[in-house]
Amino acid sequence: MKSEIIAVGSEMLTPWRQDTNSLYLTEKLNGIGVTVAFKTIVGDRRKDLVAVIRAALGRVDVLILMGGLGPTEDDLTREAVAEALSLTLRRDAAQVAALHARAASWRMPMPSNNLKQADVLESAIVLPNPNGSAPGQWLDMQFGGYRKLVLLVPGPPSECRPLFDAECIPRLRTALPTRSIARRTLRAAMIPESQADKLLAPTYTEYTDVETTILAHAGDIQLTLLCSKADAAVAQQRVDELAGRMEEALEDWLYSSDGESLEQIVLYYLGLRQATLAVAESCTGGMIAERITQVPGASRSFLGGAVVYSDALKTAFAQVPSSLILQHGAVSSEVAEAMAEGIRLRTGATLGLGVTGIAGPNGATANKPVGLVHIALSDAARTESIEKTFHGDRERVREFATQQALDLIRRRLM
Amino acid sequence: MKSEIIAVGSEMLTPWRQDTNSLYLTEKLNGIGVTVAFKTIVGDRRKDLVAVIRAALGRVDVLILMGGLGPTEDDLTREAVAEALSLTLRRDAAQVAALHARAASWRMPMPSNNLKQADVLESAIVLPNPNGSAPGQWLDMQFGGYRKLVLLVPGPPSECRPLFDAECIPRLRTALPTRSIARRTLRAAMIPESQADKLLAPTYTEYTDVETTILAHAGDIQLTLLCSKADAAVAQQRVDELAGRMEEALEDWLYSSDGESLEQIVLYYLGLRQATLAVAESCTGGMIAERITQVPGASRSFLGGAVVYSDALKTAFAQVPSSLILQHGAVSSEVAEAMAEGIRLRTGATLGLGVTGIAGPNGATANKPVGLVHIALSDAARTESIEKTFHGDRERVREFATQQALDLIRRRLM
Repeated sequence: MKSEIIAVGSEMLTPWRQDTNSLYLTEKLNGIGVTVAFKTIVGDRRKDLVAVIRAALGRVDVLILMGGLGPTEDDLTREAVAEALSLTLRRDAAQVAALHARAASWRMPMPSNNLKQADVLESAIVLPNPNGSAPGQWLDMQFGGYRKLVLLVPGPPSECRPLFDAECIPRLRTALPTRSIARRTLRAAMIPESQADKLLAPTYTEYTDVETTILAHAGDIQLTLLCSKADAAVAQQRVDELAGRMEEALEDWLYSSDGESLEQIVLYYLGLRQATLAVAESCTGGMIAERITQVPGASRSFLGGAVVYSDALKTAFAQVPSSLILQHGAVSSEVAEAMAEGIRLRTGATLGLGVTGIAGPNGATANKPVGLVHIALSDAARTESIEKTFHGDRERVREFATQQALDLIRRRLM
Repeated sequence: MKSEIIAVGSEMLTPWRQDTNSLYLTEKLNGIGVTVAFKTIVGDRRKDLVAVIRAALGRVDVLILMGGLGPTEDDLTREAVAEALSLTLRRDAAQVAALHARAASWRMPMPSNNLKQADVLESAIVLPNPNGSAPGQWLDMQFGGYRKLVLLVPGPPSECRPLFDAECIPRLRTALPTRSIARRTLRAAMIPESQADKLLAPTYTEYTDVETTILAHAGDIQLTLLCSKADAAVAQQRVDELAGRMEEALEDWLYSSDGESLEQIVLYYLGLRQATLAVAESCTGGMIAERITQVPGASRSFLGGAVVYSDALKTAFAQVPSSLILQHGAVSSEVAEAMAEGIRLRTGATLGLGVTGIAGPNGATANKPVGLVHIALSDAARTESIEKTFHGDRERVREFATQQALDLIRRRLM
């Protein structure tokens, strides 16, 4: 079953804003066996909207229109669908009452143009929107001899997503032929994409009924396996079988068999070993701590750390002797190791991490290029460091260094 | 002049990957007076691609196809354009030679399917791609009685963007009627979007020839003004005039008159005052330090700081007396102020910042809800704190707290 998602709004045709709802909707649609074959972004011009809806009717069975349901003159989705499908709009009395009640409860006056949000397409079912004023609409109709499902959902993510889950997915499940989708996500760290593909392609190309997607970002590889079958158990078995073979091929590059993030895995291992972690960051400037503390409950294993951007703070917080910095430079394995050991002793953590490097674009010297990073890990038994040179701009170097540091912790704890 | 950007690739129809090139291209197109009226994302199916190209030919003058130019069977953009426009493809001898030379220089064998990258549309100009193997193509042709410009550019950002800048923009400038675009970006912090719109709408609606876009994210408002005229000076004057009136209306919420980020502005003021900053972060977990250190050269004014997630580290690194934490709780104005003063004294910075709060989803108590954050700032003269309750999930609370903290520093330095 093929669908098209149409995002309506001129702001999404600027250089600064992107539709993100469609990613959420795609995941939910895939989960019930509906493929997204096209995504279209169109501005708030009625003529353009009508053209886009007509093109979509010619190529898919399920059309989802997001946005353009508000009260302003620019909100034209209802009108455009009516024109494209030759339907009339009627003002729904229950919706008018709901709009008045909403305005009253907010003690706000009710401008008359607000009422256009109560306009409902002939034969459409109204989909309640508890998080906003404009309801969604569901049309199940014949067009050009084919059955078409046309869904109108509000644009703001806080309205669109709950309404889609509560009102659209169950209706689509009932309206469409049953397919079951099985899905697994594997993740691996610090393996180059080309190498991962070389390792895995011989396996996944065998499984023509499982769709494998590889995404790579700054030292992180995410493999998603998707299989759609009439029988849920068969779909799951195919996905699990391929996942098992991929896990074997990826060896210890693999860190997650079910989509968890690297920081989640690090915290999981820390909890398992009843260990605690503290970090001393220079070039990553807080990014490692920030990633770890994204996880709720991180405080159980993560004590905190120091962002030791200046040499003086490397000494004050991570107990790095200033003579060591003078002798080897702030970007050196010696200083990284002293940072890791210093922050561990200073905080009483089981594990101390130290990261120092040159994120760029400035700061390179004759024998220390931009991208050079030293990462050290210290526990009671030993302190060791690795040296890497990452390529790319400041952000990319920091992201790679952060990923490499988290992976180093994971490997120590494994 | 209206354009459509068509991004080709099945991976962009998954829940995990989005086209981002189009934002870059949109900015460049707007800069020469070309509007993006539609964006379409389509998978690697020839039939779908042809349908999308035909629809675009019916509604815009400039079509930009990104991706699908590689050597694999899934790369079908050239073939689909040929079919949609009834053109033939010819294998270009110079491109074949270039592909052989490239393979030889990499000491790689040359698989025969690589040669399809040398296929050029009848009457197209080949656009050199120094960063990849597939060149771009430029078609200036008549279709259905109208002039159409059809551009084929490679998909990978590292190839697409330089090629677009070097080969497409200059050609478009020559091919299209000259328009000059003036642009300004104003930014404001911690003013609610609805309040900003209420303040500004009476002004910007007067300027019907200037397009104003308001984007809001976690306490940051970005206003972009765009004006397209035949005469560059007139366009600039209109934008500057409206910008001036908006700056006045926004009073001290405005922090940037030309698009700089809040962290850039904070570092600018620190430099101006020859002041230094250190931070002690609890609930933001490194996010403030991370944002500041995104700016190259941050080390001139930013000494670093401490991520004091545990109570023990609040004492060890920010000199917060443990009795104070016992008495008032870790999330309190007293502890925030002690953190700010402690980190300032500990590091010798001119300014010390302390942030403590409950990011959620857990950790709330009867009188301390999720989202409660205390932010304190300390200099030699005084230590003061503010209390805020932010709404939303963990990430949003942390983002708002970070933005509020940076804004507090800005206001102290102003």
